[in-house]
Amino acid sequence: MARSRVNRQQDEESSAVERYLGQVLQHCGEDTSGHLARDLPAPGSTDPALHALALATSDGDEYGAGDDDQLFTLQSISKPLVYALAIDDVGLDRINRVVGQEPSGEAFNELSLEGGTGRPLNPMINAGAIVIHQLLDDHGYGPEQGGPQDSSRTENTRRRTARLLEGLSAFAGRRLQVDWELAEAGYRQDYRNLAIANMLKTHQVLAFDPQEAVRGYSDQCSVLVTVQDIARMAATLANNGLHPQTGQRVVSEHAARQTLSVMATCGMYDGSGRWLAQIGIPAKSGVSGGIMGVLPGRLGLASFAPRLDEEGNSVQGVEMFQRLSRDLGLHLMASERRAVTETLEDLPQQNV
Amino acid sequence: MARSRVNRQQDEESSAVERYLGQVLQHCGEDTSGHLARDLPAPGSTDPALHALALATSDGDEYGAGDDDQLFTLQSISKPLVYALAIDDVGLDRINRVVGQEPSGEAFNELSLEGGTGRPLNPMINAGAIVIHQLLDDHGYGPEQGGPQDSSRTENTRRRTARLLEGLSAFAGRRLQVDWELAEAGYRQDYRNLAIANMLKTHQVLAFDPQEAVRGYSDQCSVLVTVQDIARMAATLANNGLHPQTGQRVVSEHAARQTLSVMATCGMYDGSGRWLAQIGIPAKSGVSGGIMGVLPGRLGLASFAPRLDEEGNSVQGVEMFQRLSRDLGLHLMASERRAVTETLEDLPQQNV
Amino acid sequence: MARSRVNRQQDEESSAVERYLGQVLQHCGEDTSGHLARDLPAPGSTDPALHALALATSDGDEYGAGDDDQLFTLQSISKPLVYALAIDDVGLDRINRVVGQEPSGEAFNELSLEGGTGRPLNPMINAGAIVIHQLLDDHGYGPEQGGPQDSSRTENTRRRTARLLEGLSAFAGRRLQVDWELAEAGYRQDYRNLAIANMLKTHQVLAFDPQEAVRGYSDQCSVLVTVQDIARMAATLANNGLHPQTGQRVVSEHAARQTLSVMATCGMYDGSGRWLAQIGIPAKSGVSGGIMGVLPGRLGLASFAPRLDEEGNSVQGVEMFQRLSRDLGLHLMASERRAVTETLEDLPQQNV
Amino acid sequence: MARSRVNRQQDEESSAVERYLGQVLQHCGEDTSGHLARDLPAPGSTDPALHALALATSDGDEYGAGDDDQLFTLQSISKPLVYALAIDDVGLDRINRVVGQEPSGEAFNELSLEGGTGRPLNPMINAGAIVIHQLLDDHGYGPEQGGPQDSSRTENTRRRTARLLEGLSAFAGRRLQVDWELAEAGYRQDYRNLAIANMLKTHQVLAFDPQEAVRGYSDQCSVLVTVQDIARMAATLANNGLHPQTGQRVVSEHAARQTLSVMATCGMYDGSGRWLAQIGIPAKSGVSGGIMGVLPGRLGLASFAPRLDEEGNSVQGVEMFQRLSRDLGLHLMASERRAVTETLEDLPQQNV
Repeated sequence: MARSRVNRQQDEESSAVERYLGQVLQHCGEDTSGHLARDLPAPGSTDPALHALALATSDGDEYGAGDDDQLFTLQSISKPLVYALAIDDVGLDRINRVVGQEPSGEAFNELSLEGGTGRPLNPMINAGAIVIHQLLDDHGYGPEQGGPQDSSRTENTRRRTARLLEGLSAFAGRRLQVDWELAEAGYRQDYRNLAIANMLKTHQVLAFDPQEAVRGYSDQCSVLVTVQDIARMAATLANNGLHPQTGQRVVSEHAARQTLSVMATCGMYDGSGRWLAQIGIPAKSGVSGGIMGVLPGRLGLASFAPRLDEEGNSVQGVEMFQRLSRDLGLHLMASERRAVTETLEDLPQQNV
Repeated sequence: MARSRVNRQQDEESSAVERYLGQVLQHCGEDTSGHLARDLPAPGSTDPALHALALATSDGDEYGAGDDDQLFTLQSISKPLVYALAIDDVGLDRINRVVGQEPSGEAFNELSLEGGTGRPLNPMINAGAIVIHQLLDDHGYGPEQGGPQDSSRTENTRRRTARLLEGLSAFAGRRLQVDWELAEAGYRQDYRNLAIANMLKTHQVLAFDPQEAVRGYSDQCSVLVTVQDIARMAATLANNGLHPQTGQRVVSEHAARQTLSVMATCGMYDGSGRWLAQIGIPAKSGVSGGIMGVLPGRLGLASFAPRLDEEGNSVQGVEMFQRLSRDLGLHLMASERRAVTETLEDLPQQNV
Repeated sequence: MARSRVNRQQDEESSAVERYLGQVLQHCGEDTSGHLARDLPAPGSTDPALHALALATSDGDEYGAGDDDQLFTLQSISKPLVYALAIDDVGLDRINRVVGQEPSGEAFNELSLEGGTGRPLNPMINAGAIVIHQLLDDHGYGPEQGGPQDSSRTENTRRRTARLLEGLSAFAGRRLQVDWELAEAGYRQDYRNLAIANMLKTHQVLAFDPQEAVRGYSDQCSVLVTVQDIARMAATLANNGLHPQTGQRVVSEHAARQTLSVMATCGMYDGSGRWLAQIGIPAKSGVSGGIMGVLPGRLGLASFAPRLDEEGNSVQGVEMFQRLSRDLGLHLMASERRAVTETLEDLPQQNV
Repeated sequence: MARSRVNRQQDEESSAVERYLGQVLQHCGEDTSGHLARDLPAPGSTDPALHALALATSDGDEYGAGDDDQLFTLQSISKPLVYALAIDDVGLDRINRVVGQEPSGEAFNELSLEGGTGRPLNPMINAGAIVIHQLLDDHGYGPEQGGPQDSSRTENTRRRTARLLEGLSAFAGRRLQVDWELAEAGYRQDYRNLAIANMLKTHQVLAFDPQEAVRGYSDQCSVLVTVQDIARMAATLANNGLHPQTGQRVVSEHAARQTLSVMATCGMYDGSGRWLAQIGIPAKSGVSGGIMGVLPGRLGLASFAPRLDEEGNSVQGVEMFQRLSRDLGLHLMASERRAVTETLEDLPQQNV
């Protein structure tokens, strides 16, 4: 965690914050319940001892603890990020015609498609994310920028992967890579997403070929990141789409706001209501063990620990978010909103 | 709108704000679409020409425009308020055992009870509100404080009505009344709520008699308020449960935060996701034509206009909230949060 | 079982048939699994040792074994019988407008009302039976024929009860009685049916008052019968509505055929498909422990044994029907249909 | 319709019966409502003027009228036939573990999979038929018997197609062919069945590859038949699995009975209850315009007319079945069951 980085606080305050994060990490690390994701032979996701925590402010500061340079795959955390990119690419009106923005409620209806129209209920479930993926505007991207040429990837797939890699890299503030081998292997047994994509095709909410959609979405899920990357991505959303460190406008203010709203109501699947009430931080988790949280106007948070609970969320990650929300007063519905810097300045004096 | 009130701004700024509210009211009043609620012969709800708007800050200022002293019935706007009271009365753990906190998603399952347990999915739907009503702790309240003695109201009903009248009055900062006649008449034909209450009883999530529950809930819905009352109630939630004008702690910070979270994800029924994305203000509407909105730490908003859209929300009310959110930058997910006073100070200069 | 009866076979063949039925009864009686119905303090339904079997042919013969003169309440077995009466009273077209004729499939939707219209899916579920009950044409019946005058029974209720008592008595070929005390007690705690009736009222498929509907339906369920009665009722349906012994036309051929069809597809709730495949006899069971089966053109069957399985069907009753179907070749889909008399004549020679 | 055939009645009676069928055909042919199946460029299914009717008794007689030598594709009519074959191939117990036998009720859940297990609710819906197809025992069949070798058909597919072609040909009493080109073309755009097969795979109720399953099922649907073939297939089921003309035991009595039961409760999708009540003949329709009906112990019926109603059933076919059921007294629940020969003998005297 002692890498140099843009704007990294090297002074005493920084040490204090990272010491606090380390304490949270250690405390929550004692819970060894949960299980590793089945069928995910991905970097980081097979070693239950790994764990990391990172925080990036909308002012450009960042802090990390634990295995914060460990790469793992983005998985569902990609959903809100690509949703934001697509809003700018094709406009929210066009997106709303094919993907809703309502929580899916009970999970009994496995596909969560709206009755009648077949629209996925929101972009945070797989059905919605697959449609969003195909909406990305890949004009101006060459297939050669989108990874290796193999039988299962069409030119369209490669161009779209090139487009989303650029966008996700801008969110992270550094050039990201895809685990191509994992993407290819994952796709072949992804019966559930193939079922979803084919069903979407019958409802005409998917423009192109269903297999191509799943193949491309597999690339999207296999982008490699660290918790530091995710914290910066989250901070960019917190900062209305403007990267706090690079200064790049990654997505529009409008796209950032829409994305955070949908994360708040739909980000944690069937447990979205409970999460917002208990923790109060719009968030999205991934099956690889990561969680991304955004407090608008203030900061981005990221945790990583691969053991999952029954709902597929990182056991230690959920605990770390609970702890941080409480300690740092990060609840979205709290009436008092101290500047993050003030909160963090107090930390060294706190009895954590 | 020229009544004296605690902390009412009588100066130039106040005039400017109220002028702005009046302009919004007038502009949105031009939309005469929608229909009056069927079978609601209640004060305020039968005259389509009525409309009002009010804003109360968490600092204790308040502003109004239009028919802001018109009484109308609270209806579903009572749900979040009584939920907050019940959290303090019996504790969130006990409540969570019988009422969930998740959006109900699709409306196909008319009762929105959780499969297996029969728990209502959240306290913002009728099923949840009926259970919450019966959980109120009425110890220390006499039946004589709870309105007239008639055949359909048991002693329990009257005691619970006494308890909620006290709580709702504290939220408003003044003593509220019930339209007893309406409450009695409404109850008799409330087949839908009788169906719900009886079904809840079969699942053993309702402690007492189903008819008694519906009768009591009818009192709760028939509490008479003005938009000014609702704006103050909302400002109390925005101010973490402390009344900005009376200084009374109406509900705990914990209860206020939980309530606002549930309003954010479940407050506008099936359209909760869209509402949060577009308008960004946790809110609750009532069939009498009112809408209550809360921006945590900042302000409470209330609109009243009795013509409803297909989803049962006030047509003009929805438009007024859209306008206010955009003009005043009130979106919960906006990164920049100016103090309300600054925002309001700018208003006179704005070209509204 | 040695009571005199119309057309009772007193000869050798009769003895042989009743000996066979006795053997089936004894054999199946060894299964003491299952549980008594909760909250049903009704005649016959509280003694797990009771059991009986009866068979009546469409030619007018009848045979019994075990406690075949034990009275018990009709419960859901009344549903197809009253459906048939209502078809003749008001016509199938009018009935189809408010009650469907399709199986309800999965039980997740607790009310099994058709989306949009609120029509109960079929008359074999409670929702459907409650609507059918209120459709009965009670003109020409005086309240004084419909049982005691007490506070919960309106004049309408009593007239309708008079009408259905006449119809059910015609089916049985003798004057039946209601257990008035049970009917009154059952109604008071029947939260589920009150929920259903109120929900039906919101959809305007119920003409009169919901409470009145449940109260009347409680009378219908509390009619007292023996297995012999049910076997004769079933034989009347098997004989296209003409009573095989009294010669009375109880219902029209059209009503009998429609009723048997609906019993075949919907009679055994969620297990209707399995029942028809395995046993092949259109049937209806009641929570008091009875099962009525009809083989069109051939015979009526009735079993009684109060211990129920998880689905609410009599454990021993299901076994007896399986045994009889196999031994006597009673499957509706069997290509060979021997006359019942031939089949029964063979019995003495069979090694049962 | 003047081809020589086994056991064909060439006498006066035969002429009278065929004259009657011709009258029914002509009468019902006047209804030109409905639409041709979309995306089905199959033999017979693109010419709205075609129509035919056939009847085969369980005694071996057969009669036809109209275009009764027109080939068309079997489509969903294959479902009950292949279900019967699979029961004998692997046993009903094994089948019941992966495919239910209950009606699917409302169509809102597009896949009609049982909650929890993912079992298709019955073998008459696509999900169930796809699972049944893969259960066929293809031992002893070489791929060379199963049609052309092309890229989308695995060896398994070809062996299974060989097995079902043998079975279906035995039902028909003549060697049937597949429209290979149609089978291949249909498969490529069959997004719905690909969705279903992939979803089944996630629930582990499908043994082999999802694409292979859909490809094989496409062969099954593309078997070419005439109404005469279907009438003989139906007569074989009516005659407990024994072919009335060839004398071959095509399926066991047990398999025939189980299949007819499932046709009775599930054969006509959401309208199965209404069909059984109105027409009283267990049946299965196909999107190519055919309907197969079976009256156990008596006869098989087949109609063909390609214009479909909203539910996908042949408009004229439904009318012809209504007419035949009424004229010939074919309702399964009728108490009187005259021998078919008697019924048919009366026809010449009837005023049709």
